[in-house]
Amino acid sequence: MINYDAILEEIYHEVKPLVGEGHIADYIPELARISPQKFGMAVQTIDGEIFQVGDAAEKFSIQSISKVFTLTMAMQLEGDGLWQRIGREPSGTAFNSLVQLEYENGIPRNPFINAGALVVADIILSHLGDARQSVLDFMHRLCSETDIDFDHAVAHSERETGFRNAALANFLKSFGNLDNDPETVLDAYFHHCSLSMSCIEVARAGIYLANGGKLLGNGERIVRANQAKYINSLMLTCGTYDSVGDFAYRVGLPGKSGVGGGILAVMPQEFSICTWSPGLNDSGNSLAGTKALELFTTLTGISIF
Amino acid sequence: MINYDAILEEIYHEVKPLVGEGHIADYIPELARISPQKFGMAVQTIDGEIFQVGDAAEKFSIQSISKVFTLTMAMQLEGDGLWQRIGREPSGTAFNSLVQLEYENGIPRNPFINAGALVVADIILSHLGDARQSVLDFMHRLCSETDIDFDHAVAHSERETGFRNAALANFLKSFGNLDNDPETVLDAYFHHCSLSMSCIEVARAGIYLANGGKLLGNGERIVRANQAKYINSLMLTCGTYDSVGDFAYRVGLPGKSGVGGGILAVMPQEFSICTWSPGLNDSGNSLAGTKALELFTTLTGISIF
Amino acid sequence: MINYDAILEEIYHEVKPLVGEGHIADYIPELARISPQKFGMAVQTIDGEIFQVGDAAEKFSIQSISKVFTLTMAMQLEGDGLWQRIGREPSGTAFNSLVQLEYENGIPRNPFINAGALVVADIILSHLGDARQSVLDFMHRLCSETDIDFDHAVAHSERETGFRNAALANFLKSFGNLDNDPETVLDAYFHHCSLSMSCIEVARAGIYLANGGKLLGNGERIVRANQAKYINSLMLTCGTYDSVGDFAYRVGLPGKSGVGGGILAVMPQEFSICTWSPGLNDSGNSLAGTKALELFTTLTGISIF
Amino acid sequence: MINYDAILEEIYHEVKPLVGEGHIADYIPELARISPQKFGMAVQTIDGEIFQVGDAAEKFSIQSISKVFTLTMAMQLEGDGLWQRIGREPSGTAFNSLVQLEYENGIPRNPFINAGALVVADIILSHLGDARQSVLDFMHRLCSETDIDFDHAVAHSERETGFRNAALANFLKSFGNLDNDPETVLDAYFHHCSLSMSCIEVARAGIYLANGGKLLGNGERIVRANQAKYINSLMLTCGTYDSVGDFAYRVGLPGKSGVGGGILAVMPQEFSICTWSPGLNDSGNSLAGTKALELFTTLTGISIF
Repeated sequence: MINYDAILEEIYHEVKPLVGEGHIADYIPELARISPQKFGMAVQTIDGEIFQVGDAAEKFSIQSISKVFTLTMAMQLEGDGLWQRIGREPSGTAFNSLVQLEYENGIPRNPFINAGALVVADIILSHLGDARQSVLDFMHRLCSETDIDFDHAVAHSERETGFRNAALANFLKSFGNLDNDPETVLDAYFHHCSLSMSCIEVARAGIYLANGGKLLGNGERIVRANQAKYINSLMLTCGTYDSVGDFAYRVGLPGKSGVGGGILAVMPQEFSICTWSPGLNDSGNSLAGTKALELFTTLTGISIF
Repeated sequence: MINYDAILEEIYHEVKPLVGEGHIADYIPELARISPQKFGMAVQTIDGEIFQVGDAAEKFSIQSISKVFTLTMAMQLEGDGLWQRIGREPSGTAFNSLVQLEYENGIPRNPFINAGALVVADIILSHLGDARQSVLDFMHRLCSETDIDFDHAVAHSERETGFRNAALANFLKSFGNLDNDPETVLDAYFHHCSLSMSCIEVARAGIYLANGGKLLGNGERIVRANQAKYINSLMLTCGTYDSVGDFAYRVGLPGKSGVGGGILAVMPQEFSICTWSPGLNDSGNSLAGTKALELFTTLTGISIF
Repeated sequence: MINYDAILEEIYHEVKPLVGEGHIADYIPELARISPQKFGMAVQTIDGEIFQVGDAAEKFSIQSISKVFTLTMAMQLEGDGLWQRIGREPSGTAFNSLVQLEYENGIPRNPFINAGALVVADIILSHLGDARQSVLDFMHRLCSETDIDFDHAVAHSERETGFRNAALANFLKSFGNLDNDPETVLDAYFHHCSLSMSCIEVARAGIYLANGGKLLGNGERIVRANQAKYINSLMLTCGTYDSVGDFAYRVGLPGKSGVGGGILAVMPQEFSICTWSPGLNDSGNSLAGTKALELFTTLTGISIF
Repeated sequence: MINYDAILEEIYHEVKPLVGEGHIADYIPELARISPQKFGMAVQTIDGEIFQVGDAAEKFSIQSISKVFTLTMAMQLEGDGLWQRIGREPSGTAFNSLVQLEYENGIPRNPFINAGALVVADIILSHLGDARQSVLDFMHRLCSETDIDFDHAVAHSERETGFRNAALANFLKSFGNLDNDPETVLDAYFHHCSLSMSCIEVARAGIYLANGGKLLGNGERIVRANQAKYINSLMLTCGTYDSVGDFAYRVGLPGKSGVGGGILAVMPQEFSICTWSPGLNDSGNSLAGTKALELFTTLTGISIF
């Protein structure tokens, strides 16, 4: 029986000297204002327990972690047809590179690079008409609460400066891989990235990935069991930018990171976990957060490998 | 003494069977409507004579030939500072590729690929505020006439479908290599491409490149003699998309082509020449037009090599 | 309690219609002679039991599966210093591409692409002088038997036709990332690839990866427990050419394939497994073998996700 | 009437402060020993006159200038069939890059990058059996003298360290674009590069390119007039590594440079010219030599543009 409280305390103690190190994502002006001194961590077990430490209840900008949730929606809406428009292989290039897209005729390598998430947003738009409220509704359902919203200032800030994402959207459109117009897709995408949630909420939202595709409590099915496995495998092979090998090597769990400093990780049949600390390492993943997850799998002896 | 009239007649006769072959640029809906049966050719000598054959007086969309004229304006405005923001080497990749731009951090390889011409448009905008009327004024001055205008339907048509150019503009902006906003630059660029001129007008407009940088008649200076040489050398090494080697090999003159089927070529100290026929070869250059120029240098025995 | 015998029988029955489909690696003349009708599968549990079906006792050319074993040796010899010369990220390009190597200055993306395995062979050569007998000795130790050898005809055949690998070796040398001369490294590498083993032997040889780095029986340590995890994570993210995402998605186990039609897969704390069938799918992995593994994880309900 | 003697003297005077600047090609040990203080220049007119200044009579390693002469031989031997195996477009990448070759399936972009010259050497080998003596014979014929030879120490030195060229040769072979074995082709290629000639000899050897394909004196035809033009156009668009645009811009003549510090340039119907100074600029072309040619076209007012 694992003593999660003790382990989280030990991690908190060990990681503290690293908090504040690394760089903060400053290409989005709104994100640059966050204090680098934050650190939080929350574990949601499939038994329904939650353990936490530090700033685990404070909301932050989940950014690319949202790609896991919008991908889940797109899988519900589109099924395997999705993979006609997006690959599921690691990219081997930067998360916002245009090179791969050009060589592979507008098919993004996977749903976790920006180009792939833009296609995901396009799919949600085409099916549901609205890609803002429908995503909020989905997040509320996952968390069994309604206190989750976009940070419109962040979304606006990204739109103003997100020229590379605008390039990606127009490039996808030029290949015929967007059905909606680029501006609408970008607006949806930037809102998804601006979701503001706490570690506790992200861990709770992700528990269906550890629980065979079902919510805890009522056991409501979100996706099929094998789809949950698919999402986990995609997180492992494509979830942490250009350092998926290093992350798998050090942490050994499927994970998805965001430039806001959050990371969601999953241990199938056991737990979902979320860490947050704004300082990023050279690969764009939270420096203290990655270290915390590495300690977590070392101390618990739990990893998928 | 060359008998230009006889040579043009012979070319017209030989090239006729090719007119209508090739494909028409159909990615711009407005251009797709042009009859493929057109062929015109005009020679402007530095002695002030004009020779012509076929549809040489009919206006067509000069498209990328405009890049020669806007580059000339940017050289006037910016001097050598221009080369901080644009290279002058052949690209070795497609004219609208984003790959090179990514590997070289937003510096277009040369002013004749689309990315380079967008930076040129940006420079004109920054200096003159208006990049439409100022370009029209410049064309009127080069041709000593005021009957030259944009084809607004073509410009509008390109904006509606020009997602790859929109991607390029946003990409340049993300690297900090556009001062104005991407939409404004795109609007200017698409208008430049939509200039509607005849072979006679294009040949007349380009004569300063054969005449040491000066207009005929009043001898007004457009650019310095060495700048005219520079533009000619850029046309030779970068002017005909991904087939500059083949064009230099077959034609042996500096030339700049457009997807509307026009080609401007220059023989220093001798003449400027323009051909037009809408059918394009695999490299995107006018099929009959390239053949006509090849015959021209063969029959006259004149080429730079 | 899983009835492995029954499951292997069911898989054998279901997979049979696929055996013979796909293409055989014919770029190595010696491999092209193998009958496409072969299919074998063996499971080695950490309890010491072995289950098998079909041609599980027949020797085949393990080819790139050998990269797992030579990497293990290099980790023993060099420790973490290894990662100065080889990355551990998925490549996103073909397994024998030179492009990535050029853009990243001669550092192969991971030890499972050919360039990485050449550096691994170079490391073994530098430490042990001999990279043939030392590898044989290691394989004998892993399998507790001495009936494992190179197929010299295959090694010779590869050397005669392996111009792309010769290009890779010379390219690595030009970047200073080989200490020994390219010919010697190629000879070692082609011999490693030519190892001739049966499914039973490969599964037995790989059991240390499921058993925390230790052999069964005497419990002799091959690598540290965390090194075994590292190798498993590398197999998952980089082990199956350009379809690691698809393999993780369908099979859900760390795996390493070879063009001879073999695949080694590992379930930590449970078993190692080897399938063999020569027909390859478009990604270069055994078609029937991949299907067999997919069925195996479906029927047993065991996967890392 | 141009006073070549006076012009060469003036150039010599102006360029002297630059001689010794730049870097010497030190990747070939034998070349690294040359004194950087050398500067020579020779002009051969089609009237049969030779003008010279400085170290114009001293032999140096002509390196890639040899690609002009071997290409000429391949055109004689193979005619237009040559262009099935080599392109004639500028590469837009480094002269010894493997990237382009991979993307374009083993067809070198042009005969002046190393990969292209290896295919040229292969063609000579296939036709003549011997690619050493036959090239020497050709050089003797061009120069009407027999005092031209390979520098075997340089050839040997290049073979010992030329791993990137060995990578290129093996890569070409893997694509089926070499008929002979890579070692034999490399030996031929390195010998061609090691040709030791003076400025006077190189200028004399190249005069057929200015003279419509014929030798002076006996008027013996080397290639057809249009083939001579083709070679000139290839030199202009592909002859000076990754700075053909800059060279055309500044010098305005077809030219071919070598890392030994030599440059051959041609003015059709007028002259061939050779400069030599070992210090190279960032593009790998002779720093003082390029400046000397720039001054030459400025002072004489002669250029192709």
